[in-house]
Amino acid sequence: MSRKIKVAQFGLGPIGQSSIRLLAERENFEIVGGIDIQPALSGKLVGDVCGLPSLSKAKIYPTFEEMWKKVKPDVVVHTAGSRAKITFEQCKPMLQKGLAVVSSCEELLFPAHRAPNETVAIDKLCRKSGGRILGTGVNPGFVLDLLPVCLTGVCRTVQSVYGERVVNASTRRQPLQKKIGSGLEPKEFLKLWSEGKAGHAGFKESLLLVAHSLGWKMGEVTETMEPMVADHDIQTEFFTVKKGLTCGLHQVVKSKSAKGHSIHFDLKMYLDAKDPHDLVKLESDPPIEAYLKGGVAGDRATVAAVVNCIPRLLAAQPGVRLMTDVPLSGFTVD
Amino acid sequence: MSRKIKVAQFGLGPIGQSSIRLLAERENFEIVGGIDIQPALSGKLVGDVCGLPSLSKAKIYPTFEEMWKKVKPDVVVHTAGSRAKITFEQCKPMLQKGLAVVSSCEELLFPAHRAPNETVAIDKLCRKSGGRILGTGVNPGFVLDLLPVCLTGVCRTVQSVYGERVVNASTRRQPLQKKIGSGLEPKEFLKLWSEGKAGHAGFKESLLLVAHSLGWKMGEVTETMEPMVADHDIQTEFFTVKKGLTCGLHQVVKSKSAKGHSIHFDLKMYLDAKDPHDLVKLESDPPIEAYLKGGVAGDRATVAAVVNCIPRLLAAQPGVRLMTDVPLSGFTVD
Repeated sequence: MSRKIKVAQFGLGPIGQSSIRLLAERENFEIVGGIDIQPALSGKLVGDVCGLPSLSKAKIYPTFEEMWKKVKPDVVVHTAGSRAKITFEQCKPMLQKGLAVVSSCEELLFPAHRAPNETVAIDKLCRKSGGRILGTGVNPGFVLDLLPVCLTGVCRTVQSVYGERVVNASTRRQPLQKKIGSGLEPKEFLKLWSEGKAGHAGFKESLLLVAHSLGWKMGEVTETMEPMVADHDIQTEFFTVKKGLTCGLHQVVKSKSAKGHSIHFDLKMYLDAKDPHDLVKLESDPPIEAYLKGGVAGDRATVAAVVNCIPRLLAAQPGVRLMTDVPLSGFTVD
Repeated sequence: MSRKIKVAQFGLGPIGQSSIRLLAERENFEIVGGIDIQPALSGKLVGDVCGLPSLSKAKIYPTFEEMWKKVKPDVVVHTAGSRAKITFEQCKPMLQKGLAVVSSCEELLFPAHRAPNETVAIDKLCRKSGGRILGTGVNPGFVLDLLPVCLTGVCRTVQSVYGERVVNASTRRQPLQKKIGSGLEPKEFLKLWSEGKAGHAGFKESLLLVAHSLGWKMGEVTETMEPMVADHDIQTEFFTVKKGLTCGLHQVVKSKSAKGHSIHFDLKMYLDAKDPHDLVKLESDPPIEAYLKGGVAGDRATVAAVVNCIPRLLAAQPGVRLMTDVPLSGFTVD
């Protein structure tokens, strides 16, 4: 399409603001509004909240319905949560209007896992309305799901998929340092993790997306987490972690198929991590091993992954879409 | 689709035979016939030519029209040449019937470069008939085009794309060792290359596909080749190369956009190459560097790339398709 794509931003926290700043840099987008439930933001200008005074028209509305009375976006960028069920609920009014929604919601990478009924219902709704919804990001969304699937594209057979990611959390934003348990007693962090209140979200979804793409019917998917314990005092911009306390996590997800195929992902995110990198290794014909030096940096890349998917999602069929369903074009700015 | 996909093979040389053997391993395909212009093959069984006696029904026909009288494939796998114009001409009758064609034709990766008018005409024809055609492979088709585009998916901005591939040609089939000039006087090989009769085909197409995906308008694309000269006597299964004669090629393709973006690919394919690998490096935010240890092995992977694209192409819209247009699902055997 030669006209600009009209975009609204749902959620104006740090990630949402970063999304707005990236959208504003791209010539193919027009930012028409923002949505945030915080009363303090309602009525403000998106540009004022995001440090972009030139965005003088786009306002922040408390709900999609309020915004829709004033402006009509083509696309909503959703960066307001990790849970598939809640995201579907939040996005239903937009999808009913036939809009496209790209979300950083981790569980939305493979929503049939945690929200099977809702996925079917929303998919049906979208096919009627012309709406589309897609979950993406760097992890989940790229390093341990899309990239391995891309690599299998040149394989005659694949026996197993292994991926590992080591992230130096010292360079990351406060919410990430918090979710990896920084400064907590290891037992306390383990308890929070087992209650689903901390740790890396969307890990099973990465595994299930790869399995789905390969047509593998997996058995039980096991997910485990061990706190990483500081062997020296660590000081970040946001946390002070004494030796012996939690400085990060080591999370593992694994599964085997009845036919013996296996998928195994290993994630370490911790403060002062040495040798951050991403690695994907396929036991396959031909064998493939891809090493990403330094790894794909988080936050900034996550926002890019979301924004870059807008034209890709618009090119796909209506429905609940997966990253492996949409075309793999890059973004098109010139 | 739950029924098997009916596939015919166009071209029954070594690559076509390898394609048949891979198709036969996959439960989702049914091989219904072959097409080859060689009179000696006409009327034979595909299975007999490919060493698969269990394939007792599929015959080899001299033309698509002859085959169409007897069997009706959904898809044709085309492995019969490198030139876009000739491939379009060969595939036109199939596309008129609304079939999908996946081809290893190098120029078909970005056919608008060498066959702009034909690309428009065939695309128009396909949109009417429901036909689809796609060119793919490992190189071109994956290492220096699809993979870099995939990696840009998590970038906020991209300034340059660099890729290098070092292939140890000693482990490859005879036609590849021939096309890299093995055993020729360097001058003689350079002459053949400059006449388009030897060397790596589809290199400019890789660059142009990446540029297209990124929305970059490139200036002149320059392609150069220097023969690699043997520094010792080399003996392969197929060639004897004395010291001082050509043992391979070093081919480079480069371009810049008016806005200063650049793409640069460097390919070395030679006998007894040390440290074969693939590398993609993006000057981008965030920066990305992907190293594929050993590189993606050629011939067997090329056939896999082609066969794996069948369900991907069937999921895409009718028309002349690019690798960046089709969804990135892997193959689905279980």
